[in-house]
Amino acid sequence: MNPDPTRFILLNPSLPANVGAAARAINVMGFHDLVLVAPRLPDVLAHPDALAMASSAAGVLANARVVPTLAQALDGVSYACATAMTPRDFGPPTQAPRDHLPSLAASRHRVAMVFGSERFGMRNDEVYQCHVCLCIPTHAAYGSLNLAQAVQLVAYEWRLACGGFDAPARASDPALADGAAVAGVVAHWQQALEHTGYLDPAMPGKLMPRFQQWLQRAHPTQDEVHIARGIARAVLKLKR
Amino acid sequence: MNPDPTRFILLNPSLPANVGAAARAINVMGFHDLVLVAPRLPDVLAHPDALAMASSAAGVLANARVVPTLAQALDGVSYACATAMTPRDFGPPTQAPRDHLPSLAASRHRVAMVFGSERFGMRNDEVYQCHVCLCIPTHAAYGSLNLAQAVQLVAYEWRLACGGFDAPARASDPALADGAAVAGVVAHWQQALEHTGYLDPAMPGKLMPRFQQWLQRAHPTQDEVHIARGIARAVLKLKR
Repeated sequence: MNPDPTRFILLNPSLPANVGAAARAINVMGFHDLVLVAPRLPDVLAHPDALAMASSAAGVLANARVVPTLAQALDGVSYACATAMTPRDFGPPTQAPRDHLPSLAASRHRVAMVFGSERFGMRNDEVYQCHVCLCIPTHAAYGSLNLAQAVQLVAYEWRLACGGFDAPARASDPALADGAAVAGVVAHWQQALEHTGYLDPAMPGKLMPRFQQWLQRAHPTQDEVHIARGIARAVLKLKR
Repeated sequence: MNPDPTRFILLNPSLPANVGAAARAINVMGFHDLVLVAPRLPDVLAHPDALAMASSAAGVLANARVVPTLAQALDGVSYACATAMTPRDFGPPTQAPRDHLPSLAASRHRVAMVFGSERFGMRNDEVYQCHVCLCIPTHAAYGSLNLAQAVQLVAYEWRLACGGFDAPARASDPALADGAAVAGVVAHWQQALEHTGYLDPAMPGKLMPRFQQWLQRAHPTQDEVHIARGIARAVLKLKR
């Protein structure tokens, strides 16, 4: 298997055929790490339509994981690319794949490409866990891409950005915090901020999404995650 | 409808879902001219799977044509791009889409993108009717692209090569001969060469494919097609 660390994440995929076609799409571009978040059918990886569309990528399906949340899918990932047509308020910046991916390929982030469901795309709270929104240029009047075809285009652009098939596999920096760790900081600080009274759970406003985006832009290391968690823990020990 | 003259041609498509997905793939990139050559199911354009996968591109299916041969599908087309993984002896040159399409977009050719069937790709005689082989870079060990996904990648690269959605639609040069006219010259000259005895129908060798490739590289105008046909006609009037 190719040691390239790039992960492809499908959120709530609905159709088994799309899951199989996505597996084939990443496989032909030399990627193999597929994670499904809460698929509509829990056993979709073994569904006959998925196997049929996967064609020679059955190994990608066999090694794919199913997890309940995006945060768990971001285990080990330090930079997540959303694929979302609609920009969100104070969400990550929107970039075309061809403009953004070459500089990302030159970084030492461990990258995930995240795709929304066929039916409703990505939810805001999922977009906020990402560092950039990749927007494939399409004609707005002519509708959206099929899920597996969006996966194909992004896998292709990423492969070319990484130097094509002649380039050595990318190595990631183990000191960078992964998305699961960042989600842990956000949850811990939410508790702490509620404890201080600064965050009113009945009227949360946009405080936590803003805090999360600030954290994402800072690309924290694992050490910095420990510090942030230590601060939250200390705050929570205070008396109200 | 967008007046862009680019045509997408599917040779002997087998699965209705792929035809529908291909229609959606070209539609989101702002292309609308789809031609099927001898599909496995003659009524594939009205098949429920095709309509389901086409999603908002039902109009592309409704306006698509079905023809019996590639030469007929090349009506009005002066430059045909094969998509073939395997180079053929003395066939057209192989190029990556990203390398080749920008210069093609700057030309005044009316362009067709030609895709082989899911089951056996393109036949040699179909590749010989084309001017270039576009080869999508994939990892050979990991298999080939699904048909509709190949269509998606090529439509995307061609859209970007044409300047994206902000660019004015391409105009083609009406003086250039189309693929149907070139096929007519080849057939006419084959008759004429057999009449002279230079071409032995029992032992044709590779004479006609070589003649065809020479003609393709020359990019004849319609006037030059008339001249070539006139020569063939004159040869055929001679007595053996």
